[in-house]
Amino acid sequence: MANRFLTKQRAVLKLYLINLVEQDRLYGLQFLQLLRKEFEPYGFRPTHSEIYKSLHELTKEGILFRTKKLKGEGQDGFQEIVIYQFTEGGYEKAKAYKKLVKQDLDRSQQMINKILRDNY
Amino acid sequence: MANRFLTKQRAVLKLYLINLVEQDRLYGLQFLQLLRKEFEPYGFRPTHSEIYKSLHELTKEGILFRTKKLKGEGQDGFQEIVIYQFTEGGYEKAKAYKKLVKQDLDRSQQMINKILRDNY
Repeated sequence: MANRFLTKQRAVLKLYLINLVEQDRLYGLQFLQLLRKEFEPYGFRPTHSEIYKSLHELTKEGILFRTKKLKGEGQDGFQEIVIYQFTEGGYEKAKAYKKLVKQDLDRSQQMINKILRDNY
Repeated sequence: MANRFLTKQRAVLKLYLINLVEQDRLYGLQFLQLLRKEFEPYGFRPTHSEIYKSLHELTKEGILFRTKKLKGEGQDGFQEIVIYQFTEGGYEKAKAYKKLVKQDLDRSQQMINKILRDNY
């Protein structure tokens, strides 16, 4: 296994993005706002660029695909928005990825417990 | 407070280095071996360069100072080794630093708990 410290931000963002697509919250633009709100109490503010890179990885890995949709009627008629959905077989891949990240989060938790035990 | 994800490797290494100096394990060369052994079960293997940078920061912050000492009698007579000790006032600074890192580790633990709760 590769050399790892605590779970990476990228893995956690990908986890939440999978979760949001599962919940049919598909709009690329919503993700940033939602995640910032979730993590605000913890002092973590994900950047636009980090979310974009995470979506890009999920797309490259064949889990999500990016498409466009016409939405409601705005002032200027219909509005085209970017949405993300699971590819065929993408949901299965997403579940396997979630399992891996779960193991890594458990490992990180044990590691923090050890650090606290050893130093305080 | 700055934008932060989970506690950084650098902070954790500095914590352990302070701890080792507290325990009078002062030799620069021991640190790498000791820390690698501690973290081996967690899949984390600190590099020489990371430990060196952490020691450098602790020195720059006035917590530790670097000095040399003659040790025992080797094959070639006395051997000069590099050791680290607390500066005057360094121990107080170290305690304040440990307190800060404790808060950050607690925050990280709560954040991992939230991530697990939200996604599994």
